Amino acid sequence: MSYNLLKGKRGIIFGALDDKSIAWKVAEKAFEEGASITLSNTATALRFGQIDELAKKCNAEVIIADATNIADLTHVFERSIEVLGGKIDFVLHSIGMSLNVRKKRVYNNLDYNFLNKTLDISAVSFHKMLQVAFKLDAINNWGSVVALSYIAAQRTLYGYNDMADAKALLESIARSFGYIYGRERKIRINTISQSPTMTTAGSGVKGVGSLLDFTERMSPLGNADAKECADYCVTLFSDLTRKVTMQNLFHDGGFSNMGMSLKAMHVYDKNLEVKLNEPTEIED
Amino acid sequence: MSYNLLKGKRGIIFGALDDKSIAWKVAEKAFEEGASITLSNTATALRFGQIDELAKKCNAEVIIADATNIADLTHVFERSIEVLGGKIDFVLHSIGMSLNVRKKRVYNNLDYNFLNKTLDISAVSFHKMLQVAFKLDAINNWGSVVALSYIAAQRTLYGYNDMADAKALLESIARSFGYIYGRERKIRINTISQSPTMTTAGSGVKGVGSLLDFTERMSPLGNADAKECADYCVTLFSDLTRKVTMQNLFHDGGFSNMGMSLKAMHVYDKNLEVKLNEPTEIED
Amino acid sequence: MSYNLLKGKRGIIFGALDDKSIAWKVAEKAFEEGASITLSNTATALRFGQIDELAKKCNAEVIIADATNIADLTHVFERSIEVLGGKIDFVLHSIGMSLNVRKKRVYNNLDYNFLNKTLDISAVSFHKMLQVAFKLDAINNWGSVVALSYIAAQRTLYGYNDMADAKALLESIARSFGYIYGRERKIRINTISQSPTMTTAGSGVKGVGSLLDFTERMSPLGNADAKECADYCVTLFSDLTRKVTMQNLFHDGGFSNMGMSLKAMHVYDKNLEVKLNEPTEIED
Amino acid sequence: MSYNLLKGKRGIIFGALDDKSIAWKVAEKAFEEGASITLSNTATALRFGQIDELAKKCNAEVIIADATNIADLTHVFERSIEVLGGKIDFVLHSIGMSLNVRKKRVYNNLDYNFLNKTLDISAVSFHKMLQVAFKLDAINNWGSVVALSYIAAQRTLYGYNDMADAKALLESIARSFGYIYGRERKIRINTISQSPTMTTAGSGVKGVGSLLDFTERMSPLGNADAKECADYCVTLFSDLTRKVTMQNLFHDGGFSNMGMSLKAMHVYDKNLEVKLNEPTEIED
Repeated sequence: MSYNLLKGKRGIIFGALDDKSIAWKVAEKAFEEGASITLSNTATALRFGQIDELAKKCNAEVIIADATNIADLTHVFERSIEVLGGKIDFVLHSIGMSLNVRKKRVYNNLDYNFLNKTLDISAVSFHKMLQVAFKLDAINNWGSVVALSYIAAQRTLYGYNDMADAKALLESIARSFGYIYGRERKIRINTISQSPTMTTAGSGVKGVGSLLDFTERMSPLGNADAKECADYCVTLFSDLTRKVTMQNLFHDGGFSNMGMSLKAMHVYDKNLEVKLNEPTEIED
Repeated sequence: MSYNLLKGKRGIIFGALDDKSIAWKVAEKAFEEGASITLSNTATALRFGQIDELAKKCNAEVIIADATNIADLTHVFERSIEVLGGKIDFVLHSIGMSLNVRKKRVYNNLDYNFLNKTLDISAVSFHKMLQVAFKLDAINNWGSVVALSYIAAQRTLYGYNDMADAKALLESIARSFGYIYGRERKIRINTISQSPTMTTAGSGVKGVGSLLDFTERMSPLGNADAKECADYCVTLFSDLTRKVTMQNLFHDGGFSNMGMSLKAMHVYDKNLEVKLNEPTEIED
Repeated sequence: MSYNLLKGKRGIIFGALDDKSIAWKVAEKAFEEGASITLSNTATALRFGQIDELAKKCNAEVIIADATNIADLTHVFERSIEVLGGKIDFVLHSIGMSLNVRKKRVYNNLDYNFLNKTLDISAVSFHKMLQVAFKLDAINNWGSVVALSYIAAQRTLYGYNDMADAKALLESIARSFGYIYGRERKIRINTISQSPTMTTAGSGVKGVGSLLDFTERMSPLGNADAKECADYCVTLFSDLTRKVTMQNLFHDGGFSNMGMSLKAMHVYDKNLEVKLNEPTEIED
Repeated sequence: MSYNLLKGKRGIIFGALDDKSIAWKVAEKAFEEGASITLSNTATALRFGQIDELAKKCNAEVIIADATNIADLTHVFERSIEVLGGKIDFVLHSIGMSLNVRKKRVYNNLDYNFLNKTLDISAVSFHKMLQVAFKLDAINNWGSVVALSYIAAQRTLYGYNDMADAKALLESIARSFGYIYGRERKIRINTISQSPTMTTAGSGVKGVGSLLDFTERMSPLGNADAKECADYCVTLFSDLTRKVTMQNLFHDGGFSNMGMSLKAMHVYDKNLEVKLNEPTEIED
């Protein structure tokens, strides 16, 4: 069902890989709600993902870009304006990657070149995107920019590693640039802090299966999935949320404000007697 | 313009007084978006306000109720289900009052009977409303309940007095009951922390004019007004935000995440030299 | 070992019951650090607890008082000033009680008279204490007031019930009155959000044993105990923390900023396969 | 006056420049409280500052190091252990620098090489310090590490620029590494979010004078100064705060929890009528 919430609006979606991606679902939903969009991702992502399929479905041009590269980002905005026939109304940043996680460097043994890349790809890219768009004056007044984040920015989860720090940086950039964009252009910038989601990218994080079960039982409404996140994004891109800015918005079934749920404790509790005096092997 | 976001939904709006009320704007907008609604307020509010006008406009029945009274609240839900033809999909709680503020009792000289009333009317009423609805099983699965709050729940503003404590209590009730409602009924409960708004009720707060100017200049997008708040409420009542619960959502043009803006400092700064050594008379 | 951190200071400790109480440990520690103190609790607490033992140990007078009663509170401050020989330097509020918890009324079936008592005893008593002391001008400049709180004020834990709302109210009162006391008297007011602690009072909360195990494994440093809390209180009463005010300070081994620890997940995980498709019985 | 709070403890203080530095005051206070310390800063800082004077006063060796360089940091810890005669008990990180601020690159026109340096010097250096110490096993059990932060990590202040993002990253690193250090070594890691302070480094930030006046009047206890910050640090290094970890602790006279104070509004208000319709020139 469509409400035509984004009728006549133009958007750019960064970070769709395959049909498990949140960005993929956002693109589909935005199209369904009447928007015209372009898609952007790296050349590698294009090769391994299925973006062409999405592009066809959404009648969208794919613009190859490395989101850490100013020239590439400039091209994405210029080309999008050209293709879509005018300035942009909304942008989704759904980009994150940690070589430390991939190469299994634990947090107390980080490779600092990798950390630098984590921050550049997952957080500074958002600043670059916003600075490029600001200089080009590429976004319409009352436009809306959203980046996807995760609660690890506020609370430590073992195994999430340097991505936690990247997300904290990302959320800070949203606030800092949100001030400038709001003041100068009446454009809002927010992050959505989404439930852990079983995307192709996310599946690499250690112990993500158990974590998903835990957060499912801790969240009164259960985990939010990619499709529900797309629904939520669409409200933030619409004209009905014009005064929401600089916020980190939890879309997580209530997880962020839970200390302990009955359902999670049921699982935890069962095994408690057995475990209480058992030595615990320790690793990151 | 209408998106039919609330088509087929049934709602109850507590707290509309006159056309400056946020609840008034929410009622209008919900109706515009396709909902059927009932309106509820006290007998006194009905006498002094203009609810009948709103009722006509929105084709809504007005149900008189004291929101601190269980029997009254039971009647509101039962009658609304009857009139609207089925269980409720959304509820707005926009109720708050402090006799300490009205009677100019400062925070270090509170009357404790007044404080008790402030808490009962402005916060406990929300628990009562939710408990009554829970027992009646009056709200549909995936329904949405919103209460209006203010940043005084987190940060102290001189003159806001015991309403600050009431709002903190209100937001806590939203979390506590949000857990139960989420787990048992898949219903979400949130608060919106709205910009200071020049409603008839709010205009009694001391120095509210200067405060509005300050928050206007501090907020990158300016203060959010009642109409914009209604737009935002409608997204939270819609099916597009189903996994957002137990949250306090700032709808304030960015104020909550500002430390100091250039525009506010321009005003502050001008007067600085003059004021620096001037004795400051102190009152609450 | 003593540092004489509170040498020459006068304090009042509200809420010591027996040697498991946090207030008990704070009294011992404050005395050890050179303070003169008085102790206050209700007549009932005196009968069932062992305060006389503590009084002897700390050379302290016990002043019977109902902390919800203005006359009683006035007496406590007046008598303490008399006995201790001057105005007060520090106060501990460690008072909380919920009849809803005791009588097993779940959160969706609260008795509102009980709720009123919960709020009055556990939160409003703090306002009364501060207002009484303010009017008597009973606290020295640069004095320090601490109330004990719990993370349920921010995040919902099943079974903690209306005490969560009371703690949220308590923390708000600390902020609101902290502003006035800071501005007018240079006195600071803070809350400590302590790990769950196996006190006589706390042991009534449902499932507290399992919760303590969970928080122990979630907290990188383990749960903080009553004695450690007393150590921390003493730093907040000392002259070394004069500019800390209106804060809620987590003393919890890191729990508040954890999303998931390896140790907690080890317990949770073990039982996961068994539980995954098992129906979960639901209660509050 | 000394309490001997740090008697027998060994510490490293990074970042003292001259007697306006917070790190300088912390060094003096730690020495006064019985600790043996070493001092570390860059060669440039040594040349332009007065560290030799401090070193003499505190009987401390100065160890030159670039805190972004692993070999240098390794040397600092190894040399400190040698000089002080054992493993380290506490560390202060008081390091921050933005070339974008210095070169007057506004936030919407950042130089990304400068940003990279800002993050490396002001935040990643903290991770490097902690990782080096972790690998060397250089810190005693129940040791304490503190880094200095600022509220710009949570709320945007015009002119603070990319240092806001660096502080957000710094605080995240404290949490992430606090988890590991707590779990593995029983060592706590916290940040202190200090009032704006008129240090030699801080005085470069635009409009800092007006900001200091604003925060002075907004904070019920006034701004905290460098000496008071040193007092507070000493409590966090002592054995009385062993279970406080992963926290960001506001030491700011209450500023962080203020929305608007009477004193600040008095200044703001005076000039209001004049300013209301005056065009505001806009810059970063």
